[in-house]
Amino acid sequence: MIKAAVVGGSGYSGAELVKILAGHPGVELSAVTSTSLAGESIAALYPNLTGVVDLSFSAYDPALAGGNDVVFLALPHGKAMTLAPALKAGGSAKIIDISGDFRLPPALYETWYGQAHAAPDLVDSAVYGLTELNKDAIRNADIVANPGCYPTGVILAAAPLLAAGLVDGPVTANCVSGVSGAGRALSEATQFCRADENISAYKVGGVHQHIPEIEQMFSRLAPEPPKLVFTPHLSSFSRGIYTTLTMAAGISSLAALNHLYKEFYAGKDFIKILPAGIYPAVKSVAGSNYCQIGLAVDARAGQVIVMSAIDNLVKGAAGQAVQNMNVMFGLDETAGLMQVGLFP
Amino acid sequence: MIKAAVVGGSGYSGAELVKILAGHPGVELSAVTSTSLAGESIAALYPNLTGVVDLSFSAYDPALAGGNDVVFLALPHGKAMTLAPALKAGGSAKIIDISGDFRLPPALYETWYGQAHAAPDLVDSAVYGLTELNKDAIRNADIVANPGCYPTGVILAAAPLLAAGLVDGPVTANCVSGVSGAGRALSEATQFCRADENISAYKVGGVHQHIPEIEQMFSRLAPEPPKLVFTPHLSSFSRGIYTTLTMAAGISSLAALNHLYKEFYAGKDFIKILPAGIYPAVKSVAGSNYCQIGLAVDARAGQVIVMSAIDNLVKGAAGQAVQNMNVMFGLDETAGLMQVGLFP
Amino acid sequence: MIKAAVVGGSGYSGAELVKILAGHPGVELSAVTSTSLAGESIAALYPNLTGVVDLSFSAYDPALAGGNDVVFLALPHGKAMTLAPALKAGGSAKIIDISGDFRLPPALYETWYGQAHAAPDLVDSAVYGLTELNKDAIRNADIVANPGCYPTGVILAAAPLLAAGLVDGPVTANCVSGVSGAGRALSEATQFCRADENISAYKVGGVHQHIPEIEQMFSRLAPEPPKLVFTPHLSSFSRGIYTTLTMAAGISSLAALNHLYKEFYAGKDFIKILPAGIYPAVKSVAGSNYCQIGLAVDARAGQVIVMSAIDNLVKGAAGQAVQNMNVMFGLDETAGLMQVGLFP
Amino acid sequence: MIKAAVVGGSGYSGAELVKILAGHPGVELSAVTSTSLAGESIAALYPNLTGVVDLSFSAYDPALAGGNDVVFLALPHGKAMTLAPALKAGGSAKIIDISGDFRLPPALYETWYGQAHAAPDLVDSAVYGLTELNKDAIRNADIVANPGCYPTGVILAAAPLLAAGLVDGPVTANCVSGVSGAGRALSEATQFCRADENISAYKVGGVHQHIPEIEQMFSRLAPEPPKLVFTPHLSSFSRGIYTTLTMAAGISSLAALNHLYKEFYAGKDFIKILPAGIYPAVKSVAGSNYCQIGLAVDARAGQVIVMSAIDNLVKGAAGQAVQNMNVMFGLDETAGLMQVGLFP
Repeated sequence: MIKAAVVGGSGYSGAELVKILAGHPGVELSAVTSTSLAGESIAALYPNLTGVVDLSFSAYDPALAGGNDVVFLALPHGKAMTLAPALKAGGSAKIIDISGDFRLPPALYETWYGQAHAAPDLVDSAVYGLTELNKDAIRNADIVANPGCYPTGVILAAAPLLAAGLVDGPVTANCVSGVSGAGRALSEATQFCRADENISAYKVGGVHQHIPEIEQMFSRLAPEPPKLVFTPHLSSFSRGIYTTLTMAAGISSLAALNHLYKEFYAGKDFIKILPAGIYPAVKSVAGSNYCQIGLAVDARAGQVIVMSAIDNLVKGAAGQAVQNMNVMFGLDETAGLMQVGLFP
Repeated sequence: MIKAAVVGGSGYSGAELVKILAGHPGVELSAVTSTSLAGESIAALYPNLTGVVDLSFSAYDPALAGGNDVVFLALPHGKAMTLAPALKAGGSAKIIDISGDFRLPPALYETWYGQAHAAPDLVDSAVYGLTELNKDAIRNADIVANPGCYPTGVILAAAPLLAAGLVDGPVTANCVSGVSGAGRALSEATQFCRADENISAYKVGGVHQHIPEIEQMFSRLAPEPPKLVFTPHLSSFSRGIYTTLTMAAGISSLAALNHLYKEFYAGKDFIKILPAGIYPAVKSVAGSNYCQIGLAVDARAGQVIVMSAIDNLVKGAAGQAVQNMNVMFGLDETAGLMQVGLFP
Repeated sequence: MIKAAVVGGSGYSGAELVKILAGHPGVELSAVTSTSLAGESIAALYPNLTGVVDLSFSAYDPALAGGNDVVFLALPHGKAMTLAPALKAGGSAKIIDISGDFRLPPALYETWYGQAHAAPDLVDSAVYGLTELNKDAIRNADIVANPGCYPTGVILAAAPLLAAGLVDGPVTANCVSGVSGAGRALSEATQFCRADENISAYKVGGVHQHIPEIEQMFSRLAPEPPKLVFTPHLSSFSRGIYTTLTMAAGISSLAALNHLYKEFYAGKDFIKILPAGIYPAVKSVAGSNYCQIGLAVDARAGQVIVMSAIDNLVKGAAGQAVQNMNVMFGLDETAGLMQVGLFP
Repeated sequence: MIKAAVVGGSGYSGAELVKILAGHPGVELSAVTSTSLAGESIAALYPNLTGVVDLSFSAYDPALAGGNDVVFLALPHGKAMTLAPALKAGGSAKIIDISGDFRLPPALYETWYGQAHAAPDLVDSAVYGLTELNKDAIRNADIVANPGCYPTGVILAAAPLLAAGLVDGPVTANCVSGVSGAGRALSEATQFCRADENISAYKVGGVHQHIPEIEQMFSRLAPEPPKLVFTPHLSSFSRGIYTTLTMAAGISSLAALNHLYKEFYAGKDFIKILPAGIYPAVKSVAGSNYCQIGLAVDARAGQVIVMSAIDNLVKGAAGQAVQNMNVMFGLDETAGLMQVGLFP
């Protein structure tokens, strides 16, 4: 059994980790920390866990790295990088960080996150955890930088065309996130009466911190990486990120496009390439680790449209983190992750 | 492995059965029938099953009873009773019927369902499948009449007080169902634009066909069974039934009430009695087979209030059907049913 | 033109007042106060008012009572009673208070609101503003205590039977409120991810502060007033309160019941008695000042069921406040209040 | 008083017309037709109209054009063009058609709607009813082709940049529609359980019939009209269309962009240009005739992003139809259209 701890278990991604790990056949969940709720029952905050998880939140302790095989960090951006060095020093546990703290080189991090990086030495050794695209490196990683939710949806949708060198010009990415993407922190924007029956864009104009993360992977995948024009939106569902990519690409046959994607993702259990005329939907993957990808060609306008749907808390956060853990510890990549989307 | 078939797999309860059985470690799903969709892929109708269930719908054939250990009937009321006799004749498969066809004596059935019963001889041998209250009989049943969704929520909430002989006068049951309770058939009432942001009562005034089913169990549980005043409502969520019972009962201590319920349901894995001041919520059990029960005493008015929450498609239909199958075949009662509620 | 000010315009009820008064043909809206947002544009907080209301929030000033004909108080409970005496002293403006501060005698207030009343002398002169039941007194009132949202729905539904002396035994009231009923204050319970796809009871067991307000009106209406058993719920819609009353009543003909209600509410423009078999729905009245009432008889159980639907922010708060203003100033009772429900 | 009839009043746009016209101070609504529901009360289908509209649906009769000043056609595509010639012959009423039948030249119509045009002679005289851009022609029109919902949102968002000749290359339009955009016809896609908590693209790849309508206006507005890459989506709200345009445009100052839009729409009451950093939201305009427009510049990628939000049933259909009627009959353009968005 792999002994695991979750640091920062009171947020939505942390709680999803707790839920997945509690049902994982190869994991023993030893501790879930929360600074503000230490001592309180987890099920009191997440009533779906009543009778499922009997743990209470505990206080954070760097010694967790000594007593566990893996420590998941599910903290707000800027927090994980302050804890990681002591954790590394405290024991041999592998670290999987769900925040943005280990995804970018320190200089780029400072530009986009607005603060200096607190552990620049550790960034070098961190491996970017987009499992389907980086599995070999993840296998041997000590620190995994788990991808952001938008990057997961965008990069998985774009990768086959990028890798084939077919993208010509900027990639326009319109993404719509469910409200859980904004986290559990109380805010006006996430109040039911404001978020319900609504859609609105935010952080428009090339300012979202996920842009450099996406472009960094574009650079690794494509010989001549395109610019990204990224507009995120928030709409009236709890879970899911829907991505619609529009780009000029040197491919005008839908059948050829479909073939390209099927080849690229052959053997990847969680990626589902949909047949012509069928498009992804976030409800189809809610609660699951799947990513559905749909394809279309606009011959009139000389453009290709690629859509993807993921659950932002699962494939976009906790689920992919466990997928990475499975890879790091030599388990079946799908262990504990076979939940099917809740539909209807 | 238990070999299982689902007759009528295109409706919401049937599809939920398919989803649960596909993930059940002890079951091989051999066939899913649909008269209208025979030949079509199940995943085309239920896109969450893409890559999970590769079967197509097949045509119904009474020979299913010969090649399977268990046949689930997930058909509209009035249909199951016309198929069951030939199924019984065609083989030794056990039958679990999700419709209302085998829950009531033929005369009562005719009164409430508005048609004569087509297989009155089989009704006698059918066992009412409210697992927690009828497990011994279910173990040896050849036909199980799986309970209705409202009856599951109401009876589980009332049973401990009824069995203790403490209920004095009518039980007022106000229930709110999610829209999936109305089934997949297209109707004005289940259109998004009408069902969204809404709540409305329906079948008000003692006319809902679940009333005799509930009162029948009240009679088996209580020495002097109370009348039921039942008002169902439909509101703006997909899954769940919320039940609020109000009744005069000879108990004025909340602690004693809580103790009564905990004792009654001791060892029942799927029933969760919540502590004082905590009340059930349908979102806490969405996608799971759990039933959460909350308790309160209104000393001013001399009344007890009991609330329950279930997922109507799981504990209220497909999940309980699988729970009954587990009991009938000597498996662990929770096998294949450990999904946790999707929250948030 | 009636000159009006709104004190506490940043909450949902206050904003709804601003919206209604801004479109009222006989009103000039002079000021909208907010302690925390003074100086900020109202439309920045309520973007539906962009280009409709150009005012900014101002700081509170008791001199408002001098320069206005009417001052609406849309403050949290416990606040209005501390401001009202200075307002009364500061000018001749009539006061319409939307909070619970002037609805109960001081002793009862202290019991249910947990604090001593700060202006007991003013309570005596306050008139309870359930317009349809108290119009003559409202006409000459200086202070109107605008009813609570639940009381409006429950009392309007029960009044004809109570006034006819037909209710026998307790009235069971199950009410379901939209999330706006919980106000704009940030809380875990009103987060989208928790409130969406959900229903849950709260303040169960005779503890909600609206109970004495309702029973007080029961006492004025009925010779032998019944006890109230009140269970409030929160569900997944923004606006609306749905009330389902169950009670033993000496009337077994639905036609007679319908006649009783039509007679009682004859000439009341905002009360709509629905025909047999048609039941209210909150979406039908969302955004409007209407109250729809539906009726049923359960002959089996000897009970009557009465349902009502209102918009909690309109007929349950701001709309009824303006209706009362219309009465107090001799305008047509419906002036500024003819918005039709937003459906679909 | 303008005497008006609505042909096809049972659909969502027709019902919205009925609601708006019933409250219009200068209109007498004489008849509302429905072939399938003739004789039935309108309020039975649209319960928000209970006590507001007392009419029943009547059968269609071409003589309506004789007894009315204006006839609104709110029929499915392909129907209006078969009725219009007889209507024109039957009287002098002006016609405002909400369908797509009179928006395109017959040849283009046949290409995109898949059927020959039934009244090609009338197409020439029809005036495209995007009020803000075509007011002079509308004033004298006998037939107005009311714009589609997506075209209204897209064209209003793009027009100032197009008219200024600043757009360079294709315009990528990602639009998200509420479910009412799919109409009242029953379908799997508009069932609550499928549409709720969801977003999905449809008609992807340059195949939606609104594309030529949009490009036709692009051609009238711009010297060198850009191609449109249009991807429509359906998400979980009833009302609204959210449009996000991305394009290369020769303008890099947000202030200049804002100035351009404010100038272009000066004096247009229903168009609201939002300040820098504020973006539209569909909930802000739900139930209203407003169009909110937000602006951003992505200097990194050399792109401009323009967002708009409208209510698809109001500014995208019935409201704009009434706005056009106001123009055609010399009324104030805003008469009967001052409803404010329902928020929260």
